[in-house]
Formats: sequence, structure tokens, C-alpha cells
Amino acid sequence: MNFSSKLIDDAVNQFATLPGIGKKTALRMVLHLLKKAPDEVESFGNAMTRMRNEIKYCQTCHNISDAAQCEICSNHSRNHSLLCVVEDIRDVIAIESTNQYNGLYHLLGGIISPMEGIGPKDLNIESLVQRVSAGEVKEIIMALSTTMEGDTTNFYLYKRLKDFGLTISTIARGIAVGDELEYADEVTLGRSILQRTPYENSLMLK
Amino acid sequence: MNFSSKLIDDAVNQFATLPGIGKKTALRMVLHLLKKAPDEVESFGNAMTRMRNEIKYCQTCHNISDAAQCEICSNHSRNHSLLCVVEDIRDVIAIESTNQYNGLYHLLGGIISPMEGIGPKDLNIESLVQRVSAGEVKEIIMALSTTMEGDTTNFYLYKRLKDFGLTISTIARGIAVGDELEYADEVTLGRSILQRTPYENSLMLK
Repeated sequence: MNFSSKLIDDAVNQFATLPGIGKKTALRMVLHLLKKAPDEVESFGNAMTRMRNEIKYCQTCHNISDAAQCEICSNHSRNHSLLCVVEDIRDVIAIESTNQYNGLYHLLGGIISPMEGIGPKDLNIESLVQRVSAGEVKEIIMALSTTMEGDTTNFYLYKRLKDFGLTISTIARGIAVGDELEYADEVTLGRSILQRTPYENSLMLK
Repeated sequence: MNFSSKLIDDAVNQFATLPGIGKKTALRMVLHLLKKAPDEVESFGNAMTRMRNEIKYCQTCHNISDAAQCEICSNHSRNHSLLCVVEDIRDVIAIESTNQYNGLYHLLGGIISPMEGIGPKDLNIESLVQRVSAGEVKEIIMALSTTMEGDTTNFYLYKRLKDFGLTISTIARGIAVGDELEYADEVTLGRSILQRTPYENSLMLK
């Protein structure tokens, strides 16, 4: 596509680098911005630049933060002996929105993926081991994706952490609430039978 | 959603003002930008601001342009007596990519839409009438959407331009190339029968 303007070209190409945005969608967004007031577009551009330049990561859990320690780590009403290991901030947002978790987090920044050349050294695993060896943490919940990469990472973390005398668990795998059995895949259904839970436990959740 | 960072909040909210972008997609884009180098994000932000501040519109056809007159209007190998009236730059890009049109354009900047409060005065119609009254234009093709608003605009333009002794046409409505008759809607199929074209004409297109 030729937009007969280098300015438009530049803006479209910048948008098209974003995930899931092709040239046509990018043009739609650029034309949308063109209809806005110049100061609105300026604050759009500035929000991105400022975000990238001023963002900090929590020294403790590696979550995105405006201060040296994030809101979750600095909240003393949360359970500091319970740690949930996740991939990135999206998982934190997802778990926080359940209102079922009151512990802290540790963000790995990814998962072990030999295919993409991501090894344990590329992730925040050493700092996790340090946090655990400090002694305050009593239980670790590994909340990673149910993929081969997630399972590999779980196993690696287990090997690194098993000698600290912690309780190490993974989040429950099974049939999603609201799902019908006949549409569940065999692996999930098989696991959900092997790892069945006492009925009294589910009564307590009501 | 609470992103525990005002910087992220701002960036997400800015992205979420774009058409078709919700909070979740916006977060995905912001996290993508976070992984880029700071100067890459800066050039992203700058491309938007510069585009909005420095963009010009062609004085003749109102197309987006980096100069006072756009590339199409200043191209002397194009047919300056033929004018195609379109809504905005996206239509110009679409028509240009067909390689079937060698005339000039006139961008209305929208179409008459009483529902959205857009009247003839909000569009580049006076400048079209002036262009036509200057005398160089011999034919006008109205290439607007096949909607009620498009038809209204066509009719308004026809009323304004009919006394200048021009040839005024609309682009052909009919069954799209590659479409099957049984799936065509009745109105389109009905029109395509009423406005049938001599078979010799289509032979000439091969």
C-alpha cells in the first residue's frame, strides 16, 4: 500500500509492528488519530514513551511497578509466606481478579522454552531461589501454563526448590467450571479422575 | 482491571481509545512495547505526534499529503479532466490499488449523514463545485458507499453539479466478481439485471 505521505507511512508502519495489527488496521488507527486534536495525539505518544522510560520493576517479585517495591509486595495485610510463581503481569492480573489469593507473587518473565532459546538463566529463577532461602516463604504455588514448556519449567523449579522444606504445589488441572464432560479432552479428563478431590472439600467452597 | 502502575494504566487507556481495541488487547500491546528498546518506543510515540502535527491536506483534492499539493494532483501524466469523488483516503488507496483509474480524486471527508449530524456544509463540497466551475473537469465518477447515506450524498452532488454540462456517473453496482448468484441479495441481483451491460463490453476487458 502507498499512502502518498511519508508521515502516514511512518505511523502506519509503527502500528503494524504491534502484535495482531496488519497494515489495514494500522491505517484505520492512524486515520482515527488524525481526527483527534493535536494535544490528544501528543499525550498518546507521550504515554508510550514515558511508560517505557520510567517503568520500574519490583525488586522483590519483578512485577511492573511505579516504585522500588510493588503494591502487592509492600502490602502487609497479605500473606508473605505464600508465593505464587507466574509467567508475567497478565497472570498476576488474572489471579488478582479472582479475589481468591492473598499471598505474594514471583514473576519469572517467561517460561523455559528450548524452541525459542529461553533457558533458566534468562528467567528470574535465581532471585526466586534467593527469596526462598531467606526463609520467610513456607509455600509455593506454581501457576504456569499447562503446556510442555510450563511442565518443564515446573519440573526445573521443583528440582531447585525441593530441598528448602517448602510445600510446593501446582494449580489444579481439571474440567473447567461450566464445562461438559463429553467435550473435555482425554488428557484433562483422565487427570481429573486421577487427581479427584474429596467431595467435602468442594462443599467447603460454597 | 488494575495494573498496579499508573504508567501502564495510562498507556493502556490511551490504546483503548483506538477503534476495535479493548483493555485486554491494549495491555497486550503495552507489554509488547515494554519489551522493546526505549528508543524504539520513542520513535513509535514520535511518529504519531509528528504525523498529527505536520500532516497537510492537498489544497486541490483534500487528500493527505506532505506538500501543498498531493502526488496525484501534481502528476501531469494523469487525466486532469476526470474526477473521482470518494469519502476518504482509504477509498483512494483502494481505487489506486486496482490500477484501473488514471484521473484525479476529490475527497469529501465523509458522507451526508443526518443521523450523525453531518450535513453538506461539513464536507468538502463547495471546493468540489469550485473545481468543477473552473472548467477543466469533464467527467465525474461518484464512488461512495452503497448505503442510504451514500445514495443521499450522490443525489445531493448530482443536484449541485448537473448544470455544469458534465458527464456524471456512479461506479457500477452488481454481483461481485467470483460471487455466486444464489447467495446474492435480491436488491443487488435486481439492479444487476436492470443495469445489464452489453456482452461485448465485458469482452473488451479481457
